[in-house]
Amino acid sequence: MEVTRTLARFIVSSRYEHIPQPIRHEAARALLNWLGCAIGASHHETIDNMLAALKPFSGPPQATIVGRSERMDILHAALVNGVSSHVLDFDDTHARTIHPSAPVLPALLAYAEHKPVAGAELVHAFVLGVEAEERIGISVFPEHYEVGWHITGTAGVFGAAAAIGKLLKLNEQQMCWALGIAATQSAGLREMFGSMCKSFHPGRAAQNGLTAALLASKGFTSSEQPIEAKRGWANVLSTKFDPTVVTEGLGERYELAYNMYKPYACGLVVHAAIDGCIQLSTEHDLKGDEIEGVELTVNPIVLELTAKREPGTGLEGKFSVFHAAAVAIVKRMAGEAQFSDEMVRSPELVALRRRVEAVGDASIHKLEARIRFRLRNGSVLEKHVKRALGSFERPLSDQDLEAKFRGLVDGVLPDSQAARLIELCWKIADLDDAAEIPRNAAKTADRR
Amino acid sequence: MEVTRTLARFIVSSRYEHIPQPIRHEAARALLNWLGCAIGASHHETIDNMLAALKPFSGPPQATIVGRSERMDILHAALVNGVSSHVLDFDDTHARTIHPSAPVLPALLAYAEHKPVAGAELVHAFVLGVEAEERIGISVFPEHYEVGWHITGTAGVFGAAAAIGKLLKLNEQQMCWALGIAATQSAGLREMFGSMCKSFHPGRAAQNGLTAALLASKGFTSSEQPIEAKRGWANVLSTKFDPTVVTEGLGERYELAYNMYKPYACGLVVHAAIDGCIQLSTEHDLKGDEIEGVELTVNPIVLELTAKREPGTGLEGKFSVFHAAAVAIVKRMAGEAQFSDEMVRSPELVALRRRVEAVGDASIHKLEARIRFRLRNGSVLEKHVKRALGSFERPLSDQDLEAKFRGLVDGVLPDSQAARLIELCWKIADLDDAAEIPRNAAKTADRR
Repeated sequence: MEVTRTLARFIVSSRYEHIPQPIRHEAARALLNWLGCAIGASHHETIDNMLAALKPFSGPPQATIVGRSERMDILHAALVNGVSSHVLDFDDTHARTIHPSAPVLPALLAYAEHKPVAGAELVHAFVLGVEAEERIGISVFPEHYEVGWHITGTAGVFGAAAAIGKLLKLNEQQMCWALGIAATQSAGLREMFGSMCKSFHPGRAAQNGLTAALLASKGFTSSEQPIEAKRGWANVLSTKFDPTVVTEGLGERYELAYNMYKPYACGLVVHAAIDGCIQLSTEHDLKGDEIEGVELTVNPIVLELTAKREPGTGLEGKFSVFHAAAVAIVKRMAGEAQFSDEMVRSPELVALRRRVEAVGDASIHKLEARIRFRLRNGSVLEKHVKRALGSFERPLSDQDLEAKFRGLVDGVLPDSQAARLIELCWKIADLDDAAEIPRNAAKTADRR
Repeated sequence: MEVTRTLARFIVSSRYEHIPQPIRHEAARALLNWLGCAIGASHHETIDNMLAALKPFSGPPQATIVGRSERMDILHAALVNGVSSHVLDFDDTHARTIHPSAPVLPALLAYAEHKPVAGAELVHAFVLGVEAEERIGISVFPEHYEVGWHITGTAGVFGAAAAIGKLLKLNEQQMCWALGIAATQSAGLREMFGSMCKSFHPGRAAQNGLTAALLASKGFTSSEQPIEAKRGWANVLSTKFDPTVVTEGLGERYELAYNMYKPYACGLVVHAAIDGCIQLSTEHDLKGDEIEGVELTVNPIVLELTAKREPGTGLEGKFSVFHAAAVAIVKRMAGEAQFSDEMVRSPELVALRRRVEAVGDASIHKLEARIRFRLRNGSVLEKHVKRALGSFERPLSDQDLEAKFRGLVDGVLPDSQAARLIELCWKIADLDDAAEIPRNAAKTADRR
């Protein structure tokens, strides 16, 4: 079976008119969500350290480092923005596998600042990039992940190669090479989770996929069965491979339809509890000191992963369902700002989190929670969250995404710039020049 | 067992004074051999295509592309020179695993043009880089290779990271990170053999290892057990891992002692036959038309891999033991120039190769051959080559390496420049500035 060639042929022959309107709109949603995450992390020490190390070797200032005033060549911009995408672990998640935007959008936007790309072209290339990386990823999932590969890096590189290959108008042969050059750079170990290398993976995937397409466009050759050959990507990097996942129904459905966006800046398992706390606090306009006690009933995995009783830092706060519930009640939000060191140490929140209890119940789904508030006035309030906001069943609305974006960008770029970016993301498909987005995502030097 | 940390500690604490003189000299031999291979391939279409694709994104002209007039930033120079190293498949080979110089020397020489590095420092860093990549490679060999990994790429990246980390004077913690950042970029599939991606692997290894050390020096973190952890490099990329190979006897012996250099520009299995033909032709000062017939007795693998009767191109000539024997007799050499399209099509050589016969004999070692010439004057000449020149048992002499270097550089750089480079390589350990070597390996623009 010709796996690589079939996929290459689909990518090369796809036309923008083929992409259904809801998928085009999902691309705009993914773009807005991704951009907020990347800008929000743009001054994290992961990025500062990377720029300190690599800036002396950057080429011409071709592309924006989002949220910052530096400009770098497009290969470095794809890398750095790819890392920013994932530093907060707040980027999008496909229902079955990877974080799809982080390896693809940084490559596309960098390229769009180098050569003119219409907004619709960029949307089209993004949809196809996601299609390639998701199908290849799912074809080896979950065995590939269980072996120890960080699939967002290992499959993501195909997404960037396919997307940039589409912009470069590669022919079928060149697209096979691009996927092959991507395959042979595929890397990223799960052992790195918890270190800066975790977000390095989608960054390298973006940069390596971009490189793969550029090389293929100039006749740099690879194997022509890089995915399916005996010593090809799937067999070397996985114990399972289902080639039909890559090739069946191409163009009939799009993987981007299964994309999810996190509303809260912490692990998915805490989302249902946060969701219920925000709902109850908002509906009854509660203050923290009106609450005598909070009881959460959650899947046992929540206690396994996030039972930190007395978090000392913002990062530890992400692993404390108690802090998460307390901050959700008081601030009615749970964005990156609600997991700062200051927030975790606030006396009001410390006092409230000590009044939160959580019990495990295996009959409860990991994106489900039951929340019970006992108020000091004697009344009891209850909420059953069947599926957390942001799950596939309860997607974030466009307005939710805008609010998340504003929360992430706040403190990095002025409000007026955030508003302009929101507007540009929604109309990406109508822009004559997709580079308006990255250009407007730069921090202007005089504001620093 | 602390594998990564033990190795890191050794690298960090090693002093130049610890390196035995024969190992230092072997470093100079490896440098001379590597440089010839890289210059010899510097105008191959693999390099032309890569430069056409990537030149627009290069940073400042910090480092030489050997054999060419272009200069690029050190990350790109490490990549491009790393690719040149392996295009002709003529670079060095460790007795048990990888091609050690290709992933390490390009990174070191690029860095030496960016910041001052004494020759002895460069020799020291090279020896340690080879030590790291060889030990890590052997610890998973051959299972890792059999799965389908191109070990020169996958293990080579550790060599570049260790070597550059030594130049950067990383501390033990940073060296662990450098090895970790290297591990999580480790890539390269054997499926790519036969395409331009094969030589891409050591190039990316050089560039990624260099990047790893630069990032670690600025506090970019990774796992601290990247090699040995459950989801670390060895367990994810191999079914076998012997950690003691990495850690035992560090500093007591050096892997560079087991390095081999190919005298002839084709697969090792043809070397014994070529060797015998050159010896007989030289000893008896024969011309091709004095020979009525040639009989070669060789290991059956030789016929399996190189039985192309009528090669049409230089590349096909490398897979023809008949052409190899004929050209060895007539030219008394078998360098890159003896495997050109013109050479393969020369009527004199075509006529002679049709008078060459080869028979397989499983009792003969694959680096062994029996050669028998029947002359038109009725006499018979015989030679038994027990081990080919260039094998571990019969290493190339320093003079042989010089001759190989001149053959590779011929037509790319002037003879005077070749002579100067030979002189510099031999005295590398005494140079105040190691960058004299790459600077002298550039093609000056006015000569093009």
